[in-house]
Amino acid sequence: MGRSRILVGERLGSLKDYLPVQRSVIITDTEVNRLYGEKFPRCPVITIGRGEGVKTLSTLETIFDKLIELGADRSWFIAGVGGGIVCDITGFAASTYMRGVDFGFVATTLLAQVDASVGGKNGVNFKGYKNMVGVFNQPAFVICDPEVLKTLPPKEIRCGFAEIIKHGAIADAALFRFMEENIENAHALDRGVIERFVSDSVTIKSGVVNRDETEKGERRKLNFGHTLGHAFEKCTGITHGEAVAAGMCAAADLSVRIGFLAESQSLRLKKVIRALGLPTSVSIEKEGLKTALLKDKKREGEGIHFVLLADMGRAVVQKIDVAVLDTFIDSMYSGR
Amino acid sequence: MGRSRILVGERLGSLKDYLPVQRSVIITDTEVNRLYGEKFPRCPVITIGRGEGVKTLSTLETIFDKLIELGADRSWFIAGVGGGIVCDITGFAASTYMRGVDFGFVATTLLAQVDASVGGKNGVNFKGYKNMVGVFNQPAFVICDPEVLKTLPPKEIRCGFAEIIKHGAIADAALFRFMEENIENAHALDRGVIERFVSDSVTIKSGVVNRDETEKGERRKLNFGHTLGHAFEKCTGITHGEAVAAGMCAAADLSVRIGFLAESQSLRLKKVIRALGLPTSVSIEKEGLKTALLKDKKREGEGIHFVLLADMGRAVVQKIDVAVLDTFIDSMYSGR
Repeated sequence: MGRSRILVGERLGSLKDYLPVQRSVIITDTEVNRLYGEKFPRCPVITIGRGEGVKTLSTLETIFDKLIELGADRSWFIAGVGGGIVCDITGFAASTYMRGVDFGFVATTLLAQVDASVGGKNGVNFKGYKNMVGVFNQPAFVICDPEVLKTLPPKEIRCGFAEIIKHGAIADAALFRFMEENIENAHALDRGVIERFVSDSVTIKSGVVNRDETEKGERRKLNFGHTLGHAFEKCTGITHGEAVAAGMCAAADLSVRIGFLAESQSLRLKKVIRALGLPTSVSIEKEGLKTALLKDKKREGEGIHFVLLADMGRAVVQKIDVAVLDTFIDSMYSGR
Repeated sequence: MGRSRILVGERLGSLKDYLPVQRSVIITDTEVNRLYGEKFPRCPVITIGRGEGVKTLSTLETIFDKLIELGADRSWFIAGVGGGIVCDITGFAASTYMRGVDFGFVATTLLAQVDASVGGKNGVNFKGYKNMVGVFNQPAFVICDPEVLKTLPPKEIRCGFAEIIKHGAIADAALFRFMEENIENAHALDRGVIERFVSDSVTIKSGVVNRDETEKGERRKLNFGHTLGHAFEKCTGITHGEAVAAGMCAAADLSVRIGFLAESQSLRLKKVIRALGLPTSVSIEKEGLKTALLKDKKREGEGIHFVLLADMGRAVVQKIDVAVLDTFIDSMYSGR
């Protein structure tokens, strides 16, 4: 696996400069195509639907059908233009079509810019299990154009904020402080602030990923807020960002409870999360949550790997005994 | 991608020594399970059907279903026990389940021992296109047990011979001569002869693959006989080995025709192919052959990469113009 070029501030309109003159194809979704299709370079476009529901092997087959129809061979280049779902599907399709063709992304959501497009994770869901099928494979490049964020609904922007908060919390106290100090500018999508958010996030994530490409050690830190977050998302249908935000708060609570983190830091985290319009908890039925956690793919043997905070900007991975977790979940409810 | 341990002469019964004590699962086919199931280590067994027809995304989904049912997570180990089809499917399933779990093979056919199990190619067919979907990923180990070959039908053995001849022809004149001198021993499945065949083949193939893991240069040499062979196989329904044998003869003819190879070497090749019970040509309708070749995934731009022989034991990759190929195919027919 190689390295990706992450191009923060580059424009969608410049995509053509990164593609071979011929033998390129774009994969995008209906909405991105409607908004920005005219800025695409001249090449065939494969349009997929929107929403988590299209992240299936069946969509993959549709893409393979179209690639065959176009006569695409291993020398082609596939560019995914869209949010996390488009990037995940495009990356997996490109990684498996003819055992792999080159690919790159234009990430059009804040979440995709800071998260989905970096790290080489791709894949689709399988029978309700998120990202159950996929591979690790790095795109050749990721273009992060700040302009295209302006057409995003606020809810989508907040999803990106959740991941940026996460990056600050696990690895960069300075970024976290910068966020605390720029709440209003963040809401206004101030270009300088957003570029710093994206750029720092990408640096943090790339650093972690490059040190551990197949998610066996340090990379687990990127799952901060995700172990519970995935369960929240699965049980309630809230967005990924909202689920991760609430998941981070719960993980911070757990960190405080087992003596890893000062409560003041947990409160700082919750304050920023709230200020950026994200939830610090979710309403969910207790037994459903317990069941969802046990199915989570991070489960290994008798414990679950949890990412906890030892300080603002410093995460630790800890295997938490299922029994301890059970008690903690009970306490989440008794505390209400 | 790492390196595989290729264990020529190791026994199926020793598979357990290579697996984690718990959290292993075996993927095999109905026939291998019937013949050798009692020698398997104690662990869950997923049984798939037989024949090229099972090499589909749908079989992959069945495997994912069972892995989920077993509660398999990323810490599990998947062992494929069978021929090329089992190895191809197992490798692809293991490479994509939860973005990749560790896997190894017991190759139970001569073809799989010398070919399918080495080099990290895996995948499934898609709508009639062979190996259209897959990845490159090396198994942790490949056990090549000579004993299990004794229950194979002669036709299966001949398929293995075709690949061994190929390895000698492209890279090892000494192995080729050893084959010429051991026709009878080969037919008798003499253990020493077979182990030399397998061991030399594995060395040749591993050497080529390790120098070029993603098939962009030298690895193409392993496609000797395969460009036309795949077309023969597709159009006529003969076995892969028969198709490759005839494909090698045609590629040798092409090599002679464009002045790369002395005719005497082409005749040596055909003599060994015939002596080991393989065909030197196939009966196929000319236009069908031309169509099949144009769909071949090795097609790139205006030419097709062909592997030719410059001498016995020395292959060269040459881009052959579609027009030249067209004329050559015509000559194959006018010569009859």
